[in-house]
This record gives sequence, structure tokens and C-alpha cells, in this order.
Amino acid sequence: MIQVAVFGYGTVGSGVVEVIERNNSIVSANSGDKVNVKYILDLRDFPGDPYESKLVHDVQTIIDDDEVSICCETMGGVGAAYKFTKMALEKGKSVCSSNKELVAKHGAELMRVAAEHGCAYLFEASVGGGIPVLRTLTTALTAERITQIAGILNGTTNFILTRMEEDGADFDETLKKAQELGYAEKDPTADIEGHDTARKISILTDIMSGHFVDSDAVPTTGITGITKTDIAMAREAGYSIRLLGMASRNEDDSVAVRVAPFLVKKSHPLAGVCDVFNAVFVTGNMLGETMYYGKGAGKLATASAVVADVIDAARKGSSTMYSGWDETPVTAAPSSGERFRYYVRCLGAKYDDVQAQFPGGCRMGSFGGETGFVTGMMSEEEFEAGCSKLGDAVLGTIRIYD
Amino acid sequence: MIQVAVFGYGTVGSGVVEVIERNNSIVSANSGDKVNVKYILDLRDFPGDPYESKLVHDVQTIIDDDEVSICCETMGGVGAAYKFTKMALEKGKSVCSSNKELVAKHGAELMRVAAEHGCAYLFEASVGGGIPVLRTLTTALTAERITQIAGILNGTTNFILTRMEEDGADFDETLKKAQELGYAEKDPTADIEGHDTARKISILTDIMSGHFVDSDAVPTTGITGITKTDIAMAREAGYSIRLLGMASRNEDDSVAVRVAPFLVKKSHPLAGVCDVFNAVFVTGNMLGETMYYGKGAGKLATASAVVADVIDAARKGSSTMYSGWDETPVTAAPSSGERFRYYVRCLGAKYDDVQAQFPGGCRMGSFGGETGFVTGMMSEEEFEAGCSKLGDAVLGTIRIYD
Repeated sequence: MIQVAVFGYGTVGSGVVEVIERNNSIVSANSGDKVNVKYILDLRDFPGDPYESKLVHDVQTIIDDDEVSICCETMGGVGAAYKFTKMALEKGKSVCSSNKELVAKHGAELMRVAAEHGCAYLFEASVGGGIPVLRTLTTALTAERITQIAGILNGTTNFILTRMEEDGADFDETLKKAQELGYAEKDPTADIEGHDTARKISILTDIMSGHFVDSDAVPTTGITGITKTDIAMAREAGYSIRLLGMASRNEDDSVAVRVAPFLVKKSHPLAGVCDVFNAVFVTGNMLGETMYYGKGAGKLATASAVVADVIDAARKGSSTMYSGWDETPVTAAPSSGERFRYYVRCLGAKYDDVQAQFPGGCRMGSFGGETGFVTGMMSEEEFEAGCSKLGDAVLGTIRIYD
Repeated sequence: MIQVAVFGYGTVGSGVVEVIERNNSIVSANSGDKVNVKYILDLRDFPGDPYESKLVHDVQTIIDDDEVSICCETMGGVGAAYKFTKMALEKGKSVCSSNKELVAKHGAELMRVAAEHGCAYLFEASVGGGIPVLRTLTTALTAERITQIAGILNGTTNFILTRMEEDGADFDETLKKAQELGYAEKDPTADIEGHDTARKISILTDIMSGHFVDSDAVPTTGITGITKTDIAMAREAGYSIRLLGMASRNEDDSVAVRVAPFLVKKSHPLAGVCDVFNAVFVTGNMLGETMYYGKGAGKLATASAVVADVIDAARKGSSTMYSGWDETPVTAAPSSGERFRYYVRCLGAKYDDVQAQFPGGCRMGSFGGETGFVTGMMSEEEFEAGCSKLGDAVLGTIRIYD
């Protein structure tokens, strides 16, 4: 019998219990032994809940129970979750986590602690929910030099961008709709400002580069500045706008990382990723382009990824799937030589100034007195120098993903 | 040092050598030791080839060399490839294969032989080329009851269908173009008649069901009957036509499998898979929908998958990633209760008869004297009964993927 404890009985935690119960024959067969949820840790009581008898309020009960070999950490945050994870790992209990914040901040340390105590720290669910991208990177694309990862990693912002495009609505009203539907939090800052995406692309970059990239230091632009005019002009020209977390390998092998909205050609697979779906587009030097698509969040999809980690921990014990990364944080490398085309939105009256500043570009369309313009390929520095000369004439800019 | 032998110095075999050489530092680091190609087995000579000195003509040289721990079988066919694979496995050498025909026919047996001799038989490259779908199914979606797999598994047919749609060209001229570009063989039968897709969906079904499905017994329809009128009418109505290998789990847990063209809604991710790209769309009972996309063929993409297997074999030795399937072939279960909508192409003059036969359907468009019609949801039997009554009035039919 493989005894499991679940830390946190919220959305994902209750999903983990549900996946283990409903798919128990599959989960147990793949684990090599019967899997059973022995404890659920939560400060709250859940009177009448079918699993009420498994609830405990004190983590020590779990830590002290030698029968428990695997813990699922679905609490979130970096306080108690960090403490409890470390306690479990130090007792040789593997921990499977959906907590991107904790992984982004302390993943390297927790993997080291796990290795020191003959157990595993696994976190497939922390990036891309139900999309098995970490396992793919670490077990399948092992013969590849990964040159770029570009991910739609946040369902809330992708839902908003898709709806703005489909409905011709503006940002504020679409955000309100997303909140009504439960796709956006009451305080949506972490999603719409790109911080959630920054944490996830940082974890992907950690794995891609072997170095710990501090997600707080990732240049991050969210989607609050995107107007319905941007969406309309992009659409007319055959583009969708997507918020991408992007990690690109420089010539010197360092990895530049950023979070920003991009214009993505309609014919590109990332443009077809709509609503709350997520996708990770990975380019390798031999394999070329691959993409992994699925639900980026949601109770059961995320829980399924946590339970896949439980199965992995049960099968392999301490031989974790990740080779890990340095513990010392590095600031993500700036891009060397990366060049983009840029979309510029300006007042129609200022169009000639913009065009004069960026020769070689072309007009993209006009809506409501504003005009779109696309520059030629240029470096970040060249583009910013041009924009600073134009001052107020530039109403908005978005990179183009070519 | 991990000494590797490559069986067959054709496109994929030479790609394997190239991936191991060009990405040697990555491949070796991930394998835990330096990886070296010691032998290349081929009947031909390659005078002047940079690896000429590694060429051997007699497999026995490799079999008898205890230094060789891993063989890559990239010969194709089920004759010598089967014999050499078995010889290697019986000497405890793991074999990594790109040979879908051999896996579809003898995979279960070869996995058993590998297990008996403490080595691994791996074949990620046999399905979907560079798309790591076998590893995803067997190591990542382990908490899932897979309910359906629908795959675009053949680059040649997907190229032809995409080009017919983009260029408005007919089948014969597009096939010729594909042959000129090297995307179709001189004898394209195995691709265009769906046999290649049947082998690949059979392997996926073997893994999904745990039973050996004989690919020769899979109901298979290719794309030779698709006309440019079909494509045009589908396009007008918002569909693309894709050749899908489809495995669907029945209520009783058996798996029905078929290969056929389908009308796929433009908004579905499979419709966005164009030209020689492949994708596998997997639905799980917890995870919902996921998709894995990449190059389905091509020298380096396929070779990268073979080398990922080499790394896996080097890392884990006999603990193969597949749990295997029964050796006794079963005929794939017929579908129980599966229902489709059907697209019917008929002479315009016969439209009223078709409509009368399938009440509840609707018109889809008209091109060049032919008219398209879409039925309501119905079983295969109901649809076939209706068609047989219509006789010659029905010019073509295609299922709709809803």
C-alpha cells in the first residue's frame, strides 16, 4: 500500500483526492501497488465531506507517520508550504507539488534536500497544469539543444485576449466577464500583469539552462495596455495577440527570458490556442518545432499532473526526473542579438512621423483615428531609441513573433 | 563509455549518427557517460563518408562485441530488422527503433525478449517521428483513463490535404507535387491508402488498451477518394479535411480503432496542423483534451527521438518505459455506440433524395454541379443503410469529427 497525504484541501487538493479515488485501479496499477489517501491536511473543517475522517490539522501527524511515503503539496504560497515540504522531504517522503511560486523560489534547494534524503521533489503541475511539459523536456527532448521555449502559460489572460478578439470587446469589460465566469480572480493582478507567466517561464528556463532564474527579475509586460484597436488591427492583418513567456538561447549559451504580449500569425499553432487553454512551443536544434497543448489550469487537469508525479515517485523513488539547477539565483541573461519586428499604434495624424523614424516598415490598418504600423527587423535598443524620439506619438507597441 | 551500433545507414540511421555527434555533450551528459557510435551496419559501402571506418557488413561483429550496449535499428521492414533486433536483445543489448512496421507486428514479443534479457526495446520514433507521444502516454498521462486518441500521423497525406485546400488543386496533381518535393514516395500506396497511419494508430492502441491490435485488421480508408470539390465544400463550411487514426474507448473498456479522413472544424487544434506536421490529440477522463505537435518524419526529428531512447536505455537499462501489451493479436473491437455526423457529396439533381433519406441533416454547399449535405448524428449502421438505398446518388462520404 502506498500511503499518500494531501497538504491543502482547496481546488487542486480536492482534485488530487478525486483523481486517486476515481481512477484508483489505473493509478494503483501504474504505481505498482495500491495507492491510498491516508491524510488530508487543512486548517479548516469540512463537516459532511466524504473524506472528513482523513482530515488532520497538524502536519506533524503526517510527518511522524512512517507509512506515508508521498505528500502532495497543493497549498500554494511560500510560507507553510515551504516549511511543510522541507519537513516531509527531510523525513524521506517524496513531495509532488502544484505550487509554482514555491518551485520558482525554492525549487533548486528542495530538489537538493530531496536528493539528500533519498526521495523526490516533483512539480509537473506547477507549469502548464495538465500539459506534461516538464517531463517532456527532461525525459523526452534529452537529445536536443533547446533553442527557444515560447509558452501561453496563463489561462486568464489567454481567455481575455481570445474574447477581446472574438467579441470585439475592450479589456475592462472582458476582464469583468472573466471574473464573472470564474476565469479571473477578484484581484487579477498576478495574471494580467504577467507575474504568473513569469514564474512559469522561469521554471522552464531553470530546466532549460540549468541556472536558477529569479522570476521577479524577468522583464515582464502584462496585457492591461492592450486595446481593442490593437486587437482589431492585428486581426485585420492576420494576427492574434498572445501573452507569451519566452526563453531564447543566446549564441553564448546563456538564456534570455521575458514575458510580453506578441502578435502571432494566425497560421502559427500558438494562435490557435484559445480561451483557457495553454500551450508550450519548444524549438530544438535537431527536432525543430514541437508544441504541447492542454488545459493550463482547472481542478482535475492540474490534479492529474500531481497524481502522475505520485505515480512517478512510487515507481522510481529517489531517482527524480529532474537533473535540477543551480541554487544561486542569476538574473536572466539579457538578449544578445535578438531582433524583432514591432507593431506600433499611433494617432493617424502622427503616422508620417512614425514611418519616417522607422524606414522599411509598413502600414497595418486604421481604426477610430488610430493607425497601425509594423517596423522592419531591429534590435530592442534601436526600437527604443526610435520610440523615445517619437514621444507621445506612440500610443502602444507590441513585439511580433516571427 | 556507452558504445552504440546503428543498424542501417539510410536517412534515419545517418541522422542518428549526426545527432549523437553534433549534440554529443548534451547526449553524453544526459546519458551519464560519453556516448560513442562504434559501428554502423549496412550492406552498402560509403566510400569517402566521414564515418566509413565504423561501417561493418556483418551484424555478428556487433552482436559479439560486448562493449556495445545499445543498438539503433533504423533499417525498416520485418525481415532482417526483426532477426537482428532479436539477436541484439538476446545478448542483453537494448534496441532503440524507428521501425513502425516491426513494432506494429512484433513489438510485444520483442519487449518480452528484452525483459527476459535485462535490456530494453524502445521505439518512440516509430510513431509521430519527433513527437514524444509514446513517452507521454506511458510516463506522463499515467493517472488518466485515456478515452480517445486521434492522430494526424502521416506527413505525406497531411501535406497533400493541406495543399489541396490551399491551392484548390486536385488529388493527382498534388500527389505529383508531393513526389517532386520528396514528401511522397514513388510508390505512395502505404501513405495515401492509410496503411502507414494504421500501423501507427495500432501501436498507440496497443499502449492504450494493453492488447495487440493487428494493424492489417484496422478498418482503413485513405485519401485517394477525396476530390477538390470535397475540400472546397468543407472549406466553405469552416472545415478542413484531415486523415485521422482514431482509437476510441468503448463503454466496456474495449478500444475501437479506425483510419479515415474526417472533416475537422477550423477552430479545432487538429485543423491547424498543416503540411508535413503531425499531431496526436489525446483525451483523458480527468485531464480533458491535450495535443502533442511536431514533425512526424524527417531525418533529424526522427533521429532525435531514437537518440532520446538511447539516453533512456543508458540511464535506466532494463527498466523500460513501456508496460507492454499482450502478444496474442486481437482484432480491434468494433465501435459500440459511436455516432458521427456524415458529410455526403451527391449530384445536385439527387440532393432531394439524399435529404429525404437523412432527415434532420442540412445542405453544405454546391460546386460544379455537385452538392454537399451533412447528416445528423447517427450510427455507422444507420448511415450505411441509408447510403445503400441511395445507390449511385452518393458520390462520396466523409465522417465529421465533432
